[in-house]
Amino acid sequence: MKRDFSTHDRMSVATDVVVLTTDNKPLTNNRKVAEKGLQVLLVKRDEEPYKGGWALPAGFVNYDEPLLECAKRKLREKVGLDDIYLEQLYSYGDDVNRDIRGRVISIGYIALAPKEKILLNSERASKEAEWFWIESSASQWESDKLSFLSVKDPSVRITSLAFDHRMIIADALNRIKNKIMYTDAGFHLVNELFTVKELQTVYELLLGREVQAFRRVLNDKIIETDHWTDGKAHRPARLFKKRECQ
Amino acid sequence: MKRDFSTHDRMSVATDVVVLTTDNKPLTNNRKVAEKGLQVLLVKRDEEPYKGGWALPAGFVNYDEPLLECAKRKLREKVGLDDIYLEQLYSYGDDVNRDIRGRVISIGYIALAPKEKILLNSERASKEAEWFWIESSASQWESDKLSFLSVKDPSVRITSLAFDHRMIIADALNRIKNKIMYTDAGFHLVNELFTVKELQTVYELLLGREVQAFRRVLNDKIIETDHWTDGKAHRPARLFKKRECQ
Repeated sequence: MKRDFSTHDRMSVATDVVVLTTDNKPLTNNRKVAEKGLQVLLVKRDEEPYKGGWALPAGFVNYDEPLLECAKRKLREKVGLDDIYLEQLYSYGDDVNRDIRGRVISIGYIALAPKEKILLNSERASKEAEWFWIESSASQWESDKLSFLSVKDPSVRITSLAFDHRMIIADALNRIKNKIMYTDAGFHLVNELFTVKELQTVYELLLGREVQAFRRVLNDKIIETDHWTDGKAHRPARLFKKRECQ
Repeated sequence: MKRDFSTHDRMSVATDVVVLTTDNKPLTNNRKVAEKGLQVLLVKRDEEPYKGGWALPAGFVNYDEPLLECAKRKLREKVGLDDIYLEQLYSYGDDVNRDIRGRVISIGYIALAPKEKILLNSERASKEAEWFWIESSASQWESDKLSFLSVKDPSVRITSLAFDHRMIIADALNRIKNKIMYTDAGFHLVNELFTVKELQTVYELLLGREVQAFRRVLNDKIIETDHWTDGKAHRPARLFKKRECQ
């Protein structure tokens, strides 16, 4: 039986993780109010193929390693991230030549967290990992319309990523966009306590449009707390939390 | 570079396909009106492990074969099905021991078609492929609450399938259930022209509940035609078709 089994083709299996967060964009002279944007985490490749290019945090699955554990391990090893929400996105293997080294099936994952939570671990992050603003020249998330602007060095704007990683990022954005209205996905991008405005911003960034009457639309999903923002910069705002299922 | 790459662990990759359809349940003395139920296609395994047991149509991906092509090939080879709607479900590889022969990552797919369309190809189907009624002892689709009743031989009811295939079927049912209200998934289970009642039955079977004011809920997605059912058994009913995006 073992012998029969070994006649099957074997291939390399990898995990690619799209880590998404939101952050305040730098204030310009024209804007008085901080504007939020979406960011994705990229790493600079230190080996061929695409050596020196930017890619998603990724790596090969060990023979005895659960898929999800591999995704977590790569986030730990490559970017110092731990304890972050992860979900499987899609498996990439219809293009048999997506990796010139040989047949590689990649299991895509989405990781979501508020920026504050990710910053806690930043000292452990690899020097080669960087946040990039996600910019789109279209109202939809389309792979060939995406570009990425380095947060650390705004002179760096890239449109071409290693492998099919730009397509994977577009798929991740579309997945979250398509499910954000009827699942709890959006809550992973805000802290446990949040203002309605903060949550609305997350939804609007991912949907790429305004959401009218947001408070009413989300009413079933959020619950008031007795906490308020400190009101140093603005009028104090009530903090909410996610309503847990009964 | 080739040498470095070959140091990575390689593993077997398979595709498992959950083929779902609906059909009229056999009339009993108590029922005068045909009632619809959900069916799934299973094949009897002719080799170890689980030899003689029932499993999803499945097979190993060739080194130079796109994932989707493998799923299609296995449906062709094992059950004579061709030209059927397929979508990727999820990739199974968190349980590293899900196949006792070695490490196997399985890419799950969902196939949906109206029974009439599938019957066209039935003469080519393998003798070992059979339709099973999906029955659940709970209102939700839960893996351990599912059982399967042979359409060909109602004395055969099984609860245990090969590998993790019962879990994959539950995942497929939940995936369709969760997306049916906001995607076109349900339309794959009816013919091009359908009555509102037929479409409603598909939705209600998958949701496991009645949908109130179905015609109004689906109004944006369907469009009247000038065709009617022949009205031999019942009053003629207007036929509708899916409204295509503008």
